[in-house]
Amino acid sequence: MNVNVFAGNPLDRQSTRRADEAWIGEQLRNPNTPVLAMWEGKPFVAEDARIAYLTADRAVAAAGGTDGFLFLGMDGDTPVFAVELASEDSLGEPGRFAELRSVALDLPGPEAGIVATAKSLFDWRRRHRFCAACGAPTRGVDAGWRRLCPACGAEHFPRVDPVVIMLAVSNGRCLLGRNVGWPEGRMSALAGFMEPGETIEAACARELKEEASLVVKRVVYHSTQPWPFPSSLMIGLIAEVEEGPGVPDGVEVEELRWFTREEARTVLEGRHAEVATPGGLGVARQLLASWVEER
Amino acid sequence: MNVNVFAGNPLDRQSTRRADEAWIGEQLRNPNTPVLAMWEGKPFVAEDARIAYLTADRAVAAAGGTDGFLFLGMDGDTPVFAVELASEDSLGEPGRFAELRSVALDLPGPEAGIVATAKSLFDWRRRHRFCAACGAPTRGVDAGWRRLCPACGAEHFPRVDPVVIMLAVSNGRCLLGRNVGWPEGRMSALAGFMEPGETIEAACARELKEEASLVVKRVVYHSTQPWPFPSSLMIGLIAEVEEGPGVPDGVEVEELRWFTREEARTVLEGRHAEVATPGGLGVARQLLASWVEER
Repeated sequence: MNVNVFAGNPLDRQSTRRADEAWIGEQLRNPNTPVLAMWEGKPFVAEDARIAYLTADRAVAAAGGTDGFLFLGMDGDTPVFAVELASEDSLGEPGRFAELRSVALDLPGPEAGIVATAKSLFDWRRRHRFCAACGAPTRGVDAGWRRLCPACGAEHFPRVDPVVIMLAVSNGRCLLGRNVGWPEGRMSALAGFMEPGETIEAACARELKEEASLVVKRVVYHSTQPWPFPSSLMIGLIAEVEEGPGVPDGVEVEELRWFTREEARTVLEGRHAEVATPGGLGVARQLLASWVEER
Repeated sequence: MNVNVFAGNPLDRQSTRRADEAWIGEQLRNPNTPVLAMWEGKPFVAEDARIAYLTADRAVAAAGGTDGFLFLGMDGDTPVFAVELASEDSLGEPGRFAELRSVALDLPGPEAGIVATAKSLFDWRRRHRFCAACGAPTRGVDAGWRRLCPACGAEHFPRVDPVVIMLAVSNGRCLLGRNVGWPEGRMSALAGFMEPGETIEAACARELKEEASLVVKRVVYHSTQPWPFPSSLMIGLIAEVEEGPGVPDGVEVEELRWFTREEARTVLEGRHAEVATPGGLGVARQLLASWVEER
């Protein structure tokens, strides 16, 4: 179904349990409850690149209490939590805090999805400790999923920022671009954040016009990917465009290049003389693979 | 193409011009530049339910300066702005501030899209005057499209909150639900906010499971709709589910009911004895119409 990295979180979120403080507390007093530990956005993993879950008692000891524990959901009958630790040295367990970008492809798909969810929530919390409406400090409720302002009563929910990422295609060729600042040979699908007042198709058309001076004829939805850097929703599209070379805007995109299916295949397989594979983590690679295989 | 209300904003946003303060200032000194006036989320419209654009000189006079003017984009060679006024009585022009929900279906599609964009931006600004990271007051830059924190340097961008809204279908029948608190007979497609770590398909499956105890087999993307109350992106889906009656959760949804195509047609046409049409503004109506017409 969905082959995108970070898309495989299998937990049953059971969101109605988040506000049940008694139930949440009970789970955290059960020493067997597994807890994903994170530090500065990095998951605590074992040497075999699996999540090294802590038991709840050790996690609570390392965190100095149960404050700020995030209820991720149920794995069958087992509730799974996450906690962000203040220091790298809080744990005596064997394991290490690993950069998510480095270990994401080694983690099993479901674990990459679980880590992505926890990372986005903790990043959101770190950047949203104050009320955007009135400036007062807010407090976390609902086991990590909501923040409340005691001064003005505003509620704040985790951000999910939709981004359109599209493979432009025309006449049997597809377009990759090199962003300003990327090294020679690194190319990927064009992308951009959606804005208020736009549909997915309108955002796709705007970005292709702005960044490449191309005119969209038809947009087909491919798949989505949660992107935890910090909390985007990548909406993968195939965009049929009017014929034309395209012109990089020089602001976001420095170079554009068209590829036949055969050339695109060599890029995907790492055999292209000049252009490297789009990063293995992102949906761009899936868009390209999907188009290459299309009849 | 996209028949959804609020989806028709035709302006070329020309986002690179937003940061060009000299250019922005010049346009606002041109008395002919059109400005959409809003007050408390309501657009200033003429009696014929068209936007009653002010000229820039009158808009600047009513606002007491050019601070906070929002650059919406270009209509051909004409830059279009919006401004939020502090009082309903700032204007001597003929016209009125109208509730967007009341006039949205009367406004021409492109104008409804323009108003939706401005409303979302102004609502965002009103609820984000302070830095969520440190609590300090922020200031607006980029002609309304970004806020900067002078204390900690954080940048803040307008929120777009993705929501999945899905028509569940099974065996030639489709499902509508009545939310808790809705009057008898008012029914629509089920919906819910997406969360970090989810794909569109996963959010759709979670919501149908949570709210209706239904299991999703296949999800097909239909269309999206900007929803300016205050700033959602409605992602319209048709979701094929496993056979079963469905059980309303009693928390969000109070009643579920299945409709054959013929029954759904009578709902759409306002001829159903018990169930009213889903509100004409939302994508739910388009989902239903699309399924009814499907072969």
